[in-house]
This record gives sequence, structure tokens and C-alpha cells, in this order.
Amino acid sequence: MLNSKPLIKELKKALTPENVLTTVEECYAYAQDAANTRKIKNIPDAVVFVKTVEEVQRVIKNAARYKIPVICRGAGTNVVGACRVEHGGIILNFSKMNKILDINPENMTARVQPGVILGDLQQAVEDVGLFYPPDPSNLKVSTIGGSIAQASGGAKTFKYGSTKDYVLDLQVVTAQGKILRTGSNTVKNATGYNLSSLFIGSEGTLGVVTEATLKLIPKPEAKKVLMAYFDTVETAIQAVNMIIALRIFPATIDFMDKNAIQTVEKFYPAGLLCDKDCALVIEIDGFECAIPYQQNIIENILKKCKASQIQISHNDEEYDRIWTARRSSMGACAKLKPNVTTDDVIVPRENLAKLVRGIRKICDKYDLTACLVGHVGDGSVHPQIPINYNDEDEYRRYKLAKAEIYNLTAKLGGILSGEHGIGADKREHISQVINSVAIDYMRMIKKTFDPDNILNPYKIF
Amino acid sequence: MLNSKPLIKELKKALTPENVLTTVEECYAYAQDAANTRKIKNIPDAVVFVKTVEEVQRVIKNAARYKIPVICRGAGTNVVGACRVEHGGIILNFSKMNKILDINPENMTARVQPGVILGDLQQAVEDVGLFYPPDPSNLKVSTIGGSIAQASGGAKTFKYGSTKDYVLDLQVVTAQGKILRTGSNTVKNATGYNLSSLFIGSEGTLGVVTEATLKLIPKPEAKKVLMAYFDTVETAIQAVNMIIALRIFPATIDFMDKNAIQTVEKFYPAGLLCDKDCALVIEIDGFECAIPYQQNIIENILKKCKASQIQISHNDEEYDRIWTARRSSMGACAKLKPNVTTDDVIVPRENLAKLVRGIRKICDKYDLTACLVGHVGDGSVHPQIPINYNDEDEYRRYKLAKAEIYNLTAKLGGILSGEHGIGADKREHISQVINSVAIDYMRMIKKTFDPDNILNPYKIF
Repeated sequence: MLNSKPLIKELKKALTPENVLTTVEECYAYAQDAANTRKIKNIPDAVVFVKTVEEVQRVIKNAARYKIPVICRGAGTNVVGACRVEHGGIILNFSKMNKILDINPENMTARVQPGVILGDLQQAVEDVGLFYPPDPSNLKVSTIGGSIAQASGGAKTFKYGSTKDYVLDLQVVTAQGKILRTGSNTVKNATGYNLSSLFIGSEGTLGVVTEATLKLIPKPEAKKVLMAYFDTVETAIQAVNMIIALRIFPATIDFMDKNAIQTVEKFYPAGLLCDKDCALVIEIDGFECAIPYQQNIIENILKKCKASQIQISHNDEEYDRIWTARRSSMGACAKLKPNVTTDDVIVPRENLAKLVRGIRKICDKYDLTACLVGHVGDGSVHPQIPINYNDEDEYRRYKLAKAEIYNLTAKLGGILSGEHGIGADKREHISQVINSVAIDYMRMIKKTFDPDNILNPYKIF
Repeated sequence: MLNSKPLIKELKKALTPENVLTTVEECYAYAQDAANTRKIKNIPDAVVFVKTVEEVQRVIKNAARYKIPVICRGAGTNVVGACRVEHGGIILNFSKMNKILDINPENMTARVQPGVILGDLQQAVEDVGLFYPPDPSNLKVSTIGGSIAQASGGAKTFKYGSTKDYVLDLQVVTAQGKILRTGSNTVKNATGYNLSSLFIGSEGTLGVVTEATLKLIPKPEAKKVLMAYFDTVETAIQAVNMIIALRIFPATIDFMDKNAIQTVEKFYPAGLLCDKDCALVIEIDGFECAIPYQQNIIENILKKCKASQIQISHNDEEYDRIWTARRSSMGACAKLKPNVTTDDVIVPRENLAKLVRGIRKICDKYDLTACLVGHVGDGSVHPQIPINYNDEDEYRRYKLAKAEIYNLTAKLGGILSGEHGIGADKREHISQVINSVAIDYMRMIKKTFDPDNILNPYKIF
């Protein structure tokens, strides 16, 4: 363990003292993130709140001098232990560096600090008729910096893409404390290597993002959500394929399986049909005049595929009710056991039914309840598994089930994360889906950007 | 100059002899690309046609052993000298490695070899109701490999993004001849660093792309193009801003300036209005039912902005006529002088009018004719300058004008390429728009992937 005391002394000089927390109680609160590790093994040496890029540079330069790890943190909502403190170090907290610096309707760009809450940015841009699509379900609390670090997606990725499709430029403080601009304030860029994309999803391991310029698009005029129930996952997916074959491009094609539906209905009654195998949640958007057309085609397909009940939002209240049901599954799961875990596996859509069936079989084998939700359009599944961390046997079974789920995902041509990242939790599995040559290059890139391994070490690979 | 004879001997053994061209005449034909350098100073030592990844590995391993440069080439349509031979080496020609390996409607992906012609791929995916949007104007001859190397965009980038938004996975042969997979066959990926994006726009300097998995989207049901003329660039841009403010998201917002209009009309009469300052070419798409709605809003705005004449395509023939006029400017320019050059500068849209005015002023100062076309939506301008390379004085003035155009672009917050790349032609200017820290990292990344500098050296930076 490195001695961080001289560094902390320097930091107290370099920043205002109230922005450097060092008591055990304070540090304990920042030892982990929403991944909710079973046992906290380590706490940070200090938690430092920054407000300016100069302060970030001061922290990084000092940390580099003493070779003390620096772990960036926004709201700490990631679910893979990306901000977990593995072997001490400094938590660099961006929650006070949270200004929307500029929204420019003519350029269709927003310039933001990393601590801006994603939902706040979305509201601000929608107020001027623009749209920032990435919408992870924690968007009311999670930060832009976190969504860049974890390459966040969300329900609308199918049509609108994920964070990587909306970052034009990043201001980054390097491991040596220098300022790097990764891109440009233009919507296209073919001028040198694409450094912006390299940072998106790099989980704070290559540099510290201190500002982002984001691309915005015109806000769709209207939207509507449909929910329908099916007897099998296969029929639901067949319906999705038929919808796309008719050249409908829904913003979202999400699903909830039986366990997720029943668990939500149990704790947040919303009139969901609990005897069906799964439900699709399909959002269409675009011009007001094109909504009935899309709705009509989709309804006909859903009926052809023998969907049991088709609910359609006719107003904001009904829209919110359907989405609240879909988004409540994690919260509902949390009521089943003392802890709840979520995951994020993704396969080519042609293998999605096999993945869903396989996950159910694995969880049955290990006597675990899995509520499955996900994004059919993208082929992604979030298995939400309630467990009791204090139950040693259950925890052991959970770990075995996870490993089998990752094996299955790899076998089905998928990967371990579509939108959550790898963090500390999944790094031991990454070689199952990424070839060794690619991992070698990732390690070399890490070494290029962070030769002393001070930026969020022990993450990803 | 390195001795490439032993390498060529090996290559003839490793490949079938007819796929290794070595005569001066043959090599001369591959010394440069569509950038049309003024003087060919160097020719390749050999031109090698490959058909399989194993053949590529054999070439690269041999080239690595002898430290001879390898320059990948598709159709050679790039306009920045990205395939130009600067100091000898082997041209790795992909024109025979041109199979569409798979189009999967359920996954909405295509798997292709690098030599596939972009237009052929687009036709093939449209035949099954899908859509691959990147559409550089040379798409009928240019290759997928080239579009990945140069981070191609096209007219539809404004709404649909560019090549980087559609590449899910690349198979790459590394500088050591190993096989690297950069991504995954899934539409989202947050599993380790984004290596795919690093290769897009890297102009063959980091590795040799031998296969690509591309994302497809549903093909829009209908499209229509509008063309309208304005008295000033400012009014045209004002119209664009008003269209976007009403939440219309055109697929394309292109423009042609007076010189471009007059030159096209001179050589390919199409009934264009030659006394106006510029024209907008706006393509709308989407559901059939939403076309009249968009058209109506746009027409009203164009009238409000005193557009002189509004032409609207009512059928394929009219659609093609407008687009042919817009796309003919380069060909028409080529008739003005023995040579024609094009460029690719891009600024935030709020500065586009200043860029257009500035380029005109610079070209006037140096007594050059510039036909300006570009993508208003993206803020990008392609100045097409006809010149006579044999006219020493004109060439000198042309070089001075280019340097001033780049200075102006940088001053207006823009960059040197939005969709063509940097190649050999613009590398001396790159530091005007990319900060030195970023260039340092680009160089370090280059060294990581290609320590002996054999992959397309003397390009980008």
C-alpha cells in the first residue's frame, strides 16, 4: 500500500480544505458504487471535490508525483464497480463540476461539464426543441461524465445510437496533467485518429474527462408507446422482425419477461398481465402525422402474432404509466431479497431467444430468480437477480450462474456488456469475448496513456 | 531507399505470380490516387492483389521482415493522397477481395470484404429493405475499405451520421501479421476500449482492414428533394436554421454556390438559375405520409426567406435530375482547366457563412475560380478549384490560397477534414487544428500499432 499522506497534504493546500474529505466515515461512503459489492475491502485515502479543470490538473499532477491511484466518480450509479476502490487512492468527485456551459441551437451542440446530470441536460436541450437521445434508466441521477466513461446506451439506442454517437469532443486531463482535446466542435471529423471514441467506455482508465461537446438532433414531434403480451419469447421476436421488415424503425423495442412482469405487478400494481411469458414495450416517434400509420402497422403485426393485449398510450399519463412499469423492475426486484444485482449481456438479435431461454435455464439450475428485461431491438438482456449477500450458498450459486451466463453469451456470438461497461466486476471474464490480440492492444493503449497505472487501475482487463 | 527485391521474390512465392505486378508501367499506374499530385515522384516497388486474409498476413509478415512500407488501396478514389507512394513500398490492392459475405436482415448487419464497392453494397441491402447511409459522391466506384480508412461521410451525414456510426466490428491484420478483432457483432458494445473507431479514419496507418461488420437500418419508405435559390449565403443558412427550429430533420441539406451552379449549367444544362448567389438542395425522407407535411413546412420557410425558385422532385427522374446537377460540379469544374482539386473544410454551422465568404475572398485575391459545394447541415464546404498544374504561377497561388483557407477554417473553430481525411496532402497543416498533446498521443498510438512504421508511412501527421 502506497503512502498517500504527503499527497493528501498537498491536495489540502492545492484545493480548499472542505473539498478534501479524509475521515474514515467520509471515505467509507465512497468506497463503492451502485454495483453494491458484497464486502467492502478497501476505502479511498481521500475524496476530492473539483470544480475546475485547473483543480483537476493539480490533483492529477500531485497524484502522478506520488503514484497514487485516482478514481473518477460522477454520481456513482454504475453497476459494474467502475468506481470501486480496489487498493486505495483518491476519489475525484465531479458532482460539483456540473455546469451546462452552452447549448447552441444553430450548431446543434451542447458543451457540458462532466458532473451534469443526464436528465437535466436532456430537459435543457428539449426546452429549445433539441434532443440528446442516450437514456440509461438512471438518467435522473447519473452524470454525463459517467455515461461517457461507461459508454451508456439506454432504451432508445436501437434507433438513435448510444453515447459514442453523440460525443464530438472531449477535454481530457492526461495522466501527466496535460490538457488533451480529443475531437472538434463539428459534426464530422476525419482529421487524424478518433481519440474521442477511444475515451468513451474507457471507464476513467486513460484520462480524466473535464468537458464534453455533444451533438444534438431535432426533437421528434410526437411519440407513443405500445405494450403487448406474448406466449413465447420467440413469437415476440418474430413480431419485432415483422415490424422492421415493414420498414418501421421504432425508437425503442424493449421487453420484460414473466418474472419481471409479475414482480413489478406485485409491488407496483399497474394492471400488467401476469400469466403471459413476456411483453414488448415499443415506442414509436416522429411527426405527429406519421404516428397513426406506424401504430396501425404495428398493431396489425402484434395481432397476427397473437399478442394477448395491446395497450397504447393516448396521453402523457398513459405513456408514463407504461414506462414506469418497464423501469420499475429493478426497484421491484430489490424488494424480493436484501440485495439485487443487474447485468448486461448482448447478442446478435437472431440469438436473443436462445439467450433468454438459456439464462432462465441457468438460473433455474442454480435456484435463482431472474427478472429479465432488455432491449430486443439491440439484442440485449439485463438479468436482474435478487439475492441475499449474507447467504454464502446463494452467493456461490449466483457466481456460478453468472459465469455460465457469460459462457452462453460468448457461445451465442455476443459480448459481456452493451452499455454498462466491465469495471471491476466483469474483468475476469473479458477474455471470453475479446481476442487476446485485442486485449494486448488495449493494454498497450492503457500503458501509452497511463504509464504509471494511476488512472482507475484494476478495471476492465 | 530500402531494397525491396528480396521481398518481391518472397511475395511471388507466397502469392500467385499474376497477382504481383512489378513492371515500371504497372507500378506507375498505382503511384498515386484521385488526389492527382502535380508530379509523380515515386512509384511502388510492386502492386500486390490479395483475395484472402491469409494472403494479407503473408504479405504483411514479409513486409515486416524486410521493413518495406505497405500501402493499402481500394479503388484509389481518395482525394488527399492517402494511397500515394511517397518513398516506395508495396501497394496492397483489395479490388479483388470484394465479396459481400453476408447480409443478415434479422441482425440488421452486413459482413463485407474491404474491396466491395460502396454502391453495390447499398443496392444489395436496399434490395432487402435495409439501408446503409454513408454516401460519398464517388460511391459508385469507391470501396468500403476506403470509406473506413478515410472516415467517409456524404450528403446524408447530417441525419444519419458517417462511416464511424455504422462499423460494428473490423477484422484487422496487424503490423506483425496477427489477426485483431476490434469490436463485436452487436449493435452496442461497452466491453473494453473502442478499437473499431480508432481504425476508422486511420488511413491504413494502424493495421490492414480485411473484413467489416456493418450496422444497417430500415430503409426509409419515401424521399423527396427540394432545390431553391437565394440571393445570399446568409439567407440560405437562415432558412436552414428555421427548418431545424421547426423540428424537421432533413436527410441532406447541401448547397452549391454561384460558381458551382454556373459551371454545372455551362457543361451539363439542367435549367439551373445562374444569377443567384447560391442554392440549397434539401432531401427529406421517412414515411410516405410525412413527406407532404415536411415539404409544406420547408416550402413556407423557403418562401419566407425569399427563395427565388423552388423545384421539388415528383418522381425518380426529377429526383435524379436535381442530384445529378449537385453531384456534377466536380466533373464540370474539370472541364474548366486541365486539372481540378477539391478540398474538405468544416466549421460549426454558425460560422459557415463566414467560411464561404472567406474562401471566395481568398480565391479572388489569388485569382482562382472556386466552385463551392458542401453540406450546410454539417457546416462543411468542398471548394473545387480548377487549375493548370503546368502553370507554375497558378500552382504557387493555389498553394497560398489553400494555406489561407486552412488558417481561416482554424480561426472559425473548424477542422481540416470532415470526411476526406488528411493523407499526404494536408499533413503539414494538421497542427493548425489539432493540439500538440493530441498529436503526441496520435504518434504514440501509431508507434504502438506499427513500431517499424511500415503501414502507410508519411501520412496524416
